[in-house]
Order: sequence, then structure tokens, then C-alpha cells
Amino acid sequence: MASAMSAKSLGEFQAIFVLKQVLERGAASAQIVVGIGDDAAVLKAKKQPLVWSIDTSAEGVHFDLSWLSLRQAAARAFVAALSDLAAMGARPVAALCALQVPTAVTRAQLRAVADGQSQVATRYSCPVVGGNLCRGSHWIFNTTVLGMAPKPRLRSGARVGDEVWLSGTAGEAAAGLCCLQRGEASHGQSSLAKAIRQCVRAWRQPQALIDTGAALATTAHALLDVSDGVASEARHLAEASRVKVLLDESSLQRCISPALRVVAKHLALDPLQLLLYGGEDYALLGAGNGKSRPPAAACIGRVQAGRGVALVGAKGQRPLAAGFDHLLTDRQRVGPRL
Amino acid sequence: MASAMSAKSLGEFQAIFVLKQVLERGAASAQIVVGIGDDAAVLKAKKQPLVWSIDTSAEGVHFDLSWLSLRQAAARAFVAALSDLAAMGARPVAALCALQVPTAVTRAQLRAVADGQSQVATRYSCPVVGGNLCRGSHWIFNTTVLGMAPKPRLRSGARVGDEVWLSGTAGEAAAGLCCLQRGEASHGQSSLAKAIRQCVRAWRQPQALIDTGAALATTAHALLDVSDGVASEARHLAEASRVKVLLDESSLQRCISPALRVVAKHLALDPLQLLLYGGEDYALLGAGNGKSRPPAAACIGRVQAGRGVALVGAKGQRPLAAGFDHLLTDRQRVGPRL
Repeated sequence: MASAMSAKSLGEFQAIFVLKQVLERGAASAQIVVGIGDDAAVLKAKKQPLVWSIDTSAEGVHFDLSWLSLRQAAARAFVAALSDLAAMGARPVAALCALQVPTAVTRAQLRAVADGQSQVATRYSCPVVGGNLCRGSHWIFNTTVLGMAPKPRLRSGARVGDEVWLSGTAGEAAAGLCCLQRGEASHGQSSLAKAIRQCVRAWRQPQALIDTGAALATTAHALLDVSDGVASEARHLAEASRVKVLLDESSLQRCISPALRVVAKHLALDPLQLLLYGGEDYALLGAGNGKSRPPAAACIGRVQAGRGVALVGAKGQRPLAAGFDHLLTDRQRVGPRL
Repeated sequence: MASAMSAKSLGEFQAIFVLKQVLERGAASAQIVVGIGDDAAVLKAKKQPLVWSIDTSAEGVHFDLSWLSLRQAAARAFVAALSDLAAMGARPVAALCALQVPTAVTRAQLRAVADGQSQVATRYSCPVVGGNLCRGSHWIFNTTVLGMAPKPRLRSGARVGDEVWLSGTAGEAAAGLCCLQRGEASHGQSSLAKAIRQCVRAWRQPQALIDTGAALATTAHALLDVSDGVASEARHLAEASRVKVLLDESSLQRCISPALRVVAKHLALDPLQLLLYGGEDYALLGAGNGKSRPPAAACIGRVQAGRGVALVGAKGQRPLAAGFDHLLTDRQRVGPRL
């Protein structure tokens, strides 16, 4: 953990010690030779291909600490990085985190961060084996994850005639974020309050679908995770595979969870738009032969010759916007898009 | 390259395209299966242990763009990360970079960053195979590097009776940074101007001693890189190995380069202090049996039973401060320490 942290509040080495203490508890793994504390981590190699990604979660861009705890923010940043491994059908081996901490960081805050990361490390068998500390005006988590996959699945493998698959829920996280942004109350036992809590939880505490990804990777021709909404990811799939993706409106309607439907109605938003253009649920999108569709995947469309993405409904085909930009009012605000 | 970049100036995908175009040129390597553009990079595994590190270089903390070009800043950040591989005796395989770019970033700026990274990628056979983009108020480079070493060398292997070794120059970068901070002129052909240019170059364009590290790793018992000055790294070595490190003042004097001596005199600073407490040259510090000291290493001290670091001079032993903190006037300012 080379670092450049201010000595103003906690000293650099004190800060590293706080992180190390918590994180080392979850670091037992047969593959870790050297963890936190040297110039670099050392891992045992296996014969499997390595899958490797880095993801950033910055306060003021990706999250606001009035909407979730620091512990949740740390865990969420880690899960978002792990989702990139799920998107390749890989299983995690280890993680490093380059952390920017506020100048006046406290021991309790560092412990909250380490607790959040440690919880994810344990849950996904992915120890944090090192990182970097740097001071700044706000929190930034840069998490790099290394995994292995017997056969990594790319975005580019979709074939004409394939089905398009969706695994996991989509749209709830965007609805939950919208509730947080608008200050929607979620206490009480009404079905609305419960639905809001479910959507808020989807945003605050997403899951990386590692097992599902590994299962999908055995049969899918192409795979990716839904960071930015189903429409945007379908476009990535279409572009990388040089095909046209047709999304079926009635199939997508069936993917809208009851909670999403209730919350969207309350927010006066279209739940289908939330599913298509709201990201951060970390569902998985795939393409593969209909005969080998796994039970965890819903068929939401098909792959044709051509380019682009279209929505097929009762009124025929209509092209879909490239991403969420047409819904974008102010990207300076935290989060998406609504 | 999942990302969260503002569409305000360049669109996110345009920005990724600019980076990808330049970086892919240097990305040919037998070990890279999938580079930039999917959810994660895919690398072929070999049987060797993996060595893995992440390093942050932030504008306003580690560099100031009045002191070096954006291209140099990008290259320098990458080299600093690679130095952690050198410190383990590892050879680089690939890198990922999570980039924070200013909101109003231009195409030319992105190209400069990609050019700087690409130059380092080629020089060190370490292609950039992916990353992440995020907007913010200033530039931050988070570079994670993956390497392999037949036998990674840790900090913790020093033994009583070992020599302490230094490879590469130390102190010049700190002197160079000091010149930049004080606005010292370096034009002309005087020996002072040449010396200033050499020291400024040491700070702006450091080298990662990959070959030296690999050579040292074959015989050294312990190895690390000098990010924060020889005294500070000697303390890491002593602590990790549970030994006492005695640094020999006259040997260290012989390690002071002529340029460092000239510039230090001009700055009215002690060149030995610059060597001991000025970092960012990315020299290597090791410990090993005197009989197997490689030609690239100078002996600067010895390992004893005990704890801590002391300087041995004509007046006997005196303990050395833990790091550069006793020289620190204002860590809010960019860079070290003088």
C-alpha cells in the first residue's frame, strides 16, 4: 500500500493499519501468497484465463452519503467491480482498492469502509489484498478485481437466431435512487413503503451475479452486465456482435417486478423506461440458443441480421435511443438519469 | 471500460474511442486475449506467480500541470505503478487505468494521455488493456499493473549479516521537483543548468527498474522500491524483516550523483537529506549476501539484529526519522517535502 495520504487527521500508516486489520481477517485464500503490506500482492497462478477489471465509484458522481452509509458505499463500489467478472462468467480471486479519502478522515470512517469491503470480500470469496491511499476532497473507490473463468464470455459472440436473455431484476435500482433523490418516505408497512424499501435496497446493496454469470457462460454466446440499463447494454451487445437486437416489449413487461411497478406508479414514471434506461442493478444480459437457455434467464428478445436495437411491441418495431441521454436532465447531479 | 463520464464536453464513448485508438496500437502481446472494450480484460495465465499492484497519481497531490505536460503526467503515473513490479522482481504483463478527467476535457488532452501511456506500454511491454473513465474537477490516474515473477521478492526477507543495496539514483527527483517548485531556470549550457535539467528529468520522467529488479530478485533476500526516500524505505525493510538497518554515511555520499550535488548546493539543501528523504526516483533498495551483490547495486549499509534504522558516520550511530515528516512544511502543497 504505497500511499500519499495527508498526515493531517490520521497518519498514513495509522490509516493503512486500520484498513489492514479489518481486511486481513477475510483474506484467507489458498491463492493469496502475499496480501496487504508489500509493494504488490502476490497470487498463485492457475491454468485458467485471467479476467481483470477496474471500476470507479466517486462521491458526488456515483453516490451521495446522504443516501447510503459509508459502509454501504464501500460495499457497493466493490460489488459494482465484481459485476464485471460476473459479466464474463468469471469467479473472483482477489481485489485491490485505490482509495481517495477526505483530508479529515477519521478512524471510524476507515473502519466503516474496511467493514463494507470485508463483508463483500467474505460474501464473494474475494479478499482485498492491497491498494493505495490518497487524500482528496471526497471519497473515491477505485476497485480492481481479478478473476478466473474456464471460458470467458465476451459481448461479441451473439449470433443471428439467438435469443436475448435477462437474468436478475432490472429497473429497481433506478427507481430506488429516484426515491432517495426525491426524499420519498419508506417507513411503515404499506405495500408502497415495502416496495420503496425493496427498490432502495436494490440501489444501495446490489448483488454481483457471480454464480448466475458462471452458469450463463457455459451456454451463452455473449454476456454482459447491465450497468447502464437494458437498452444501453443491448446496444453494446449489438455493436460488438455486429447484429441487430430486437427487444420484445411484452417479455420486458413480464420482467418488471411488482415492487418496481408500484414504485414507478407512485413516482409517475414508466416502469419499462426505468428497466430500459436505469442501470446499477447489475443484472446480466446474454444471447444464446433458445434450446440451451438456463432457468435463471428470461427471454426478452432475439438477434437478427442488421445493426442497432429496436423495441417490438403491438405497434411494430421502433428504434431505441442509444442510452439514457434522452432522459438526462443534469449529469452534474449524482447518479442517473430521471 | 465501464464509465461515468460527463457528456458535457466529449461524450463518454467518444472519449473511450480516442483512448482505445491510441492504446490499442501498443497492445499486441501473446498474453492478451481481450483488451479494451469488453466488461473486463482477459489474459492467458502462465504457471508463474502473479504480482499485482495499484497506484494513484492525482493532480494537486502528486503533480501539478505547470511542472510537466499532461503526456508526461500520464507516463509518470504509469511508471510509478510499474516500479511496484520492479520492487518485487516481476516483469509486467498488462495494465488497466481508471482515469478521472476534468469535466471540460478535450480530445487533444485525451490523446496526450493515451500517447503518454502508450509510450510507457511500448517501452515496458505492458499494454493498457482496459480501464474506467469518470469525470471530476481534476486529473487522477489510478493505474493497476499485473506482472509475473518466477520468485517474487518481498520486503520481509532481510537477514542479519546482509548488506543493504541501492540500485539507481536517489535524490535527483526531489531536487528536480524543488527546482520546479521554486521556478529555477534550467536553460543554457552552464553545468548548473545541465544539472537542473537532469534532476527535473529525474522527477518528470522516472524509469521503472524492471530489468534491475529482475536481476536483483535472483540474489537479494529482500527488495523494495524507493518511493518515499531511502530512509523511509530502509525503515519498511527493517520493520518487515524484524531487523535493524544501519546505513553507512560515507557509502551514501558516494551515491550522490554530481548533478544532485550541484543542484543541492544551488538550492542550499543537503544532498544527503534529499537522498534520504526525497522520493520518486524509483530506485531499488535490497538486502542480500555481500558475496552475491550484483554489479548494478551499491552497498550502502548492513543488517543487524535489532529494530529501526540508524545512520553510521564519523560521529557514530544516530537514529533516522521515520520518514520525511520532519522535513514537511505543508503537505497540502503538491509533492514532497522540502
